[in-house]
Amino acid sequence: MILEEQTISSDRIYNGKNINLRIDTVETKDKGYQKREIVEHGGAVAVVAIDYDSKIVLIKQFRKAVEGVIWEIPAGKLEKGESPKDCAIRELKEETGYVASDIKFINKFYTSPGYSTQTVYIFLARGLKKEEPQLEQGENIQTYLVDFDEAYNMVIKNEIQDAKTNIGILLSRNFFD
Amino acid sequence: MILEEQTISSDRIYNGKNINLRIDTVETKDKGYQKREIVEHGGAVAVVAIDYDSKIVLIKQFRKAVEGVIWEIPAGKLEKGESPKDCAIRELKEETGYVASDIKFINKFYTSPGYSTQTVYIFLARGLKKEEPQLEQGENIQTYLVDFDEAYNMVIKNEIQDAKTNIGILLSRNFFD
Repeated sequence: MILEEQTISSDRIYNGKNINLRIDTVETKDKGYQKREIVEHGGAVAVVAIDYDSKIVLIKQFRKAVEGVIWEIPAGKLEKGESPKDCAIRELKEETGYVASDIKFINKFYTSPGYSTQTVYIFLARGLKKEEPQLEQGENIQTYLVDFDEAYNMVIKNEIQDAKTNIGILLSRNFFD
Repeated sequence: MILEEQTISSDRIYNGKNINLRIDTVETKDKGYQKREIVEHGGAVAVVAIDYDSKIVLIKQFRKAVEGVIWEIPAGKLEKGESPKDCAIRELKEETGYVASDIKFINKFYTSPGYSTQTVYIFLARGLKKEEPQLEQGENIQTYLVDFDEAYNMVIKNEIQDAKTNIGILLSRNFFD
């Protein structure tokens, strides 16, 4: 069965700071035409940062889209031409002040492939040293150190409700077993 | 520290079939003004469906947003007024033909709280009986039964790269240990 869809036309609705929106008209295998609403996002990274006491760096910040203060791991958007690893190092430092002696890629995933191009690259950072955070304007973040086992239980109990944070913590458990 | 942001104004850019786009101007705690680009999504469900042989139902479908055929668990959008559980039962049946004797909620998460309102509710379905799928127009899906342990390894090896599928499979392992 052919699953691919050919793009017949593409209408650009919005070009923004973090996201763009376009609507593609595609031809499906049964020769029908469908509209696909697509949010373009330049990609992001997230960091599971673990200190020498097996504590993980978690942050709390207000997210307008979900109208709430939620638990997350440090994360941020890729800048143009920036490698995911460089972005992970930069965002960890900017948001929390932590610098890692060792940082490695562990996973990439699509947040919402039904409508968004966004890919998130997750890194595991070890050997943390604390410096000063450098928050961007309008970025208000509280940083916490939480026992990794407690953070894992927060995922299981669904007190953490963020895709990258759930995946990062669930996957990182393999490195402790 | 006050993390909440007050909405000063809201501009509606696009109202669509699956998503809307608005831009909020917010006031942050340092009295600055910021723009927040927000994709509105009505919510979705995803189903970890396990048969009597401990095989999980996985699907493959083309996703225009990521220009590829990817592995996912069955999933779909909430209809207006529909409960997440009813949606899980409906989408599992429509996409794969499976009807479950037992279905329970295991997790909810935000796919991308930095710009999207989308929440995904994950359900675990057991006791499967196969009937006929009822795919919507323009929906082309291949269904597979995969040993749960193999699917788990596909997540670990990053062959599965979808947020809801990763979270659903990683969390469901607890029910097998």
